[in-house]
Amino acid sequence: MYSLDKQLQQDTVLLGQFPLCDVLLMNDSQYPWVILVPRRASIRESYHLSQEEQHQLSDESAYVSQRLADFFEAVSMNVAALGNVVSQLHVHHVVRFSDDPTWPKPVWGALPAKPYEKPALAKLVDDLTRVLNDKLVEDATTSDGNSDDSDLY
Amino acid sequence: MYSLDKQLQQDTVLLGQFPLCDVLLMNDSQYPWVILVPRRASIRESYHLSQEEQHQLSDESAYVSQRLADFFEAVSMNVAALGNVVSQLHVHHVVRFSDDPTWPKPVWGALPAKPYEKPALAKLVDDLTRVLNDKLVEDATTSDGNSDDSDLY
Repeated sequence: MYSLDKQLQQDTVLLGQFPLCDVLLMNDSQYPWVILVPRRASIRESYHLSQEEQHQLSDESAYVSQRLADFFEAVSMNVAALGNVVSQLHVHHVVRFSDDPTWPKPVWGALPAKPYEKPALAKLVDDLTRVLNDKLVEDATTSDGNSDDSDLY
Repeated sequence: MYSLDKQLQQDTVLLGQFPLCDVLLMNDSQYPWVILVPRRASIRESYHLSQEEQHQLSDESAYVSQRLADFFEAVSMNVAALGNVVSQLHVHHVVRFSDDPTWPKPVWGALPAKPYEKPALAKLVDDLTRVLNDKLVEDATTSDGNSDDSDLY
């Protein structure tokens, strides 16, 4: 059975669910940063998913990238699956600006996170839920690949 | 018209061509590191590609990840499209080991590259050409999306 990694749970806020992935907001006010986690058990690399699931992940990732880039007027999107610290497959989408605190270096391991103040976090969750609304689903399954995923495609 | 970014040209060795992407070996002996660059003009983010091309990129990326992970017995694969320095869309596939010089941090911007010695480079190019052989194509097109890409799928 799928369950979200404890470290990811601790560092993020759940925005909702896409057909394949949990959609998480990284609680770091230094960069707008959304993480997608496929709701499949024991997956460390994207090639462990079926090809259909890989394409679905590609679609959900492209959607997040485009929506975040448009909303925040990003200079560039950093999209990455690393897995050196948390092995559960998770795909980062970090909105980058040429005046952010680590530009042009990558953000991972660079600076300690600065959690959002509560009102700023509430507003951002509200904004992003609206921005990502087209793909968010109700009552998403947390199946493990073999059950009936009729909402997957 | 597509042409490979000059910085990428300078930092890498061309291993060959997949149906969609140029396949480059990063000339940095500290990590086995392959970069895929879709042969499409003026593409900075993967969502600028058509959905079919995005899926093809996903397939080529999964193939490279799996082959490199198996061949080098990777601890983890770092797969990333950053674009902060070189804006042309390029997807990194870095084979990571728990005793590599920057583990568990990301490799980008961490250490200056250490180019391979000539014989080691020749052997690695030979090995990787064999490892990636199933998807390498002859006479790949360098079209810009609208022409006849009959070998794309």
